[in-house]
Amino acid sequence: MFEIRTRCPDSRARTGVLQLAHGRVQTPAFVPLATRGAVKTLEPRDVAELGYEIVLGNTFHLLLSPGLELMQRFGGLGRFMGWPAPIITDSGGFQVFSLGHGSVADEIKGRGRGRESDGAILAISEDGVRFRSYLDGSEQFLGPETSMQMQAALGSDIALVLDECTPFHATREYTARSTARTHRWLERCLRWHAGHGPAEQAVYGIVQGGVDPELRLESAEVVSASGCSGIAIGGSLGQDKQQMREVVGWCTEALGRLAPDHPRHLLGIGEVDDLITGVQLGIDTFDCAMPTRLARHGVALIADPGHRWRVDLMKARWRDSQAPILDGCPCPTCVAGHSRGYLHYLFRAGEPTGQRLLTLHNLGFIARLMADLRAAIDAGRLGRVAAALTAGQAP
Amino acid sequence: MFEIRTRCPDSRARTGVLQLAHGRVQTPAFVPLATRGAVKTLEPRDVAELGYEIVLGNTFHLLLSPGLELMQRFGGLGRFMGWPAPIITDSGGFQVFSLGHGSVADEIKGRGRGRESDGAILAISEDGVRFRSYLDGSEQFLGPETSMQMQAALGSDIALVLDECTPFHATREYTARSTARTHRWLERCLRWHAGHGPAEQAVYGIVQGGVDPELRLESAEVVSASGCSGIAIGGSLGQDKQQMREVVGWCTEALGRLAPDHPRHLLGIGEVDDLITGVQLGIDTFDCAMPTRLARHGVALIADPGHRWRVDLMKARWRDSQAPILDGCPCPTCVAGHSRGYLHYLFRAGEPTGQRLLTLHNLGFIARLMADLRAAIDAGRLGRVAAALTAGQAP
Repeated sequence: MFEIRTRCPDSRARTGVLQLAHGRVQTPAFVPLATRGAVKTLEPRDVAELGYEIVLGNTFHLLLSPGLELMQRFGGLGRFMGWPAPIITDSGGFQVFSLGHGSVADEIKGRGRGRESDGAILAISEDGVRFRSYLDGSEQFLGPETSMQMQAALGSDIALVLDECTPFHATREYTARSTARTHRWLERCLRWHAGHGPAEQAVYGIVQGGVDPELRLESAEVVSASGCSGIAIGGSLGQDKQQMREVVGWCTEALGRLAPDHPRHLLGIGEVDDLITGVQLGIDTFDCAMPTRLARHGVALIADPGHRWRVDLMKARWRDSQAPILDGCPCPTCVAGHSRGYLHYLFRAGEPTGQRLLTLHNLGFIARLMADLRAAIDAGRLGRVAAALTAGQAP
Repeated sequence: MFEIRTRCPDSRARTGVLQLAHGRVQTPAFVPLATRGAVKTLEPRDVAELGYEIVLGNTFHLLLSPGLELMQRFGGLGRFMGWPAPIITDSGGFQVFSLGHGSVADEIKGRGRGRESDGAILAISEDGVRFRSYLDGSEQFLGPETSMQMQAALGSDIALVLDECTPFHATREYTARSTARTHRWLERCLRWHAGHGPAEQAVYGIVQGGVDPELRLESAEVVSASGCSGIAIGGSLGQDKQQMREVVGWCTEALGRLAPDHPRHLLGIGEVDDLITGVQLGIDTFDCAMPTRLARHGVALIADPGHRWRVDLMKARWRDSQAPILDGCPCPTCVAGHSRGYLHYLFRAGEPTGQRLLTLHNLGFIARLMADLRAAIDAGRLGRVAAALTAGQAP
């Protein structure tokens, strides 16, 4: 299901094509989040027009509502939301464990506590996790088989196995025990899928192991030998970008030996510099809430590494600005000529059109970045292009 | 600036073309609200793709923010919001008097008290209205000249004169005094515009007079003789639809004699049956928050007169529905195949995409209705088409 097209001579980067049940995905690719069955503020046609070939749906949220039965009746998430192209679903592990670890999500993803915190873990066992729904307080259960069953109902092109996402501050012993359980759950997920899952659905295993090189290597070995179709890298990637690169590097170095032709997904990472580095480290797909979440808070992505590639259009200094968000940007918002001043006004006025315009821009920015990186790999000039991008220049 | 194309033989209806500074508008037409410089959840290109040729911007809100100076610097509302086509601006009278009358807006438009209620009128005089901004508590002033000056800065194609919008429960004496002041303000607005306004901007006078036939006739006479380019009908139109039709009928009957070739705008009316009746009574343009506001609350317009042309997709009965909102509807939402069940889910989940999808549907529904009515008038079969529509059938 994965065909590698070009390998970069001086990094682990590669371009390729994922041939999935609902279409193909050119890699390296960013995967926008359609967490609850919609990319927030966008229609499916918008996402396709931006150049995206795949979105990510969230098993945890969709299990709680609209639920398994309704998803089966609608014939899967793609038909439910009107997205005829490929879909990845995550396993729900990240969200359900966030209920217990509390700040795992915050710590790993650098965000405040969300709505999930209203729910609570009731019990974690070898079987899975009993928890309270944040929607209605009802008791719910998520285990390896439940997750795979829900992902079968969602009819995603790529399902992810259930894993425990350990926090950075977990002890090595806890992380080791947790990683071992994740490996047992991997086996159970693959067994359930072999017996009951859709034949056309690919299953990705997840490499865990926290920030410990031995545990990461061991996990890469177990996952590579498991018979899954692709491999995701999850869990705590450390406390800063340097450590994240190191941890991802351990994983892709090992996978380069153990499973060189398997597609690799990096979970929850999507800042501009991390995408560039991730591609160089050999990642094929990425998902992250960052571009869409920033957009909803008035922050636009721009070619400015010195300011974390961001400009906060809520700031008063943009009130009078007739400048575009980003000169020469091909996104619908910039093409229509919308100014920083207009976007500033819309956000200050609470006009929902502002969130849409910035979502289009931020996802358009990332789509172009990934297309530039793919072209650079194919042209054998990724090193120069990555250096130019990192210096804030056009590739 | 207004050319009448076809007159209906058995009603006051007519088709025509408004030739405005930024383009033409085929009438009868509905005018979507871009109250604060955006049609909520939509981009300008969406509004144009739905078939709309004109939008309405709100002088009161835009005066408070972003304000006169910034609007001048951006070269007007059309350039500010990226809408290159015609714009009507209202005078701000309706909003500013709602601060004082309290429930005028509620009473006339049938809606709950909005944000405006956080502001307050400080004083009403012959000069205008001093009031407190609902945004920052600052003291503000709106008079005939201020309104026209702001509308000049907005650069709208059609400006409306400042009027007082009297509530239904006002006494005849109050309404008479208020209408007389509205007429004096009309003169002041036209005088300011003649001296300082953009030459290419059309100015509409407003017929007031509440539910009193003599006052309405007198107002129609004054406005018709004033030298304005078009005529709007405003103020209280009564306590029910029957009275509204009666009041509008008095006005258009008089205008048919006094100003037969002037374009006529009916302020704040836009329910489906009211649009059909309004067209038959000789109205050329309408504006109303209804289609877009309903959309944001999960209510879709459908061809069902027995249920006020509405279906509330928030209701649990739509949870499992794979039916489209409206069979054969050409709006982007129905064309994409989105089901009532998916929309129900999006609204229950608070996903912003739901508001957008229904806004596209409701405005698409109204755009098609107006196109059907125009075609019917041109084909000399408005009576039959209106009867079919009112019976819930395709025209």
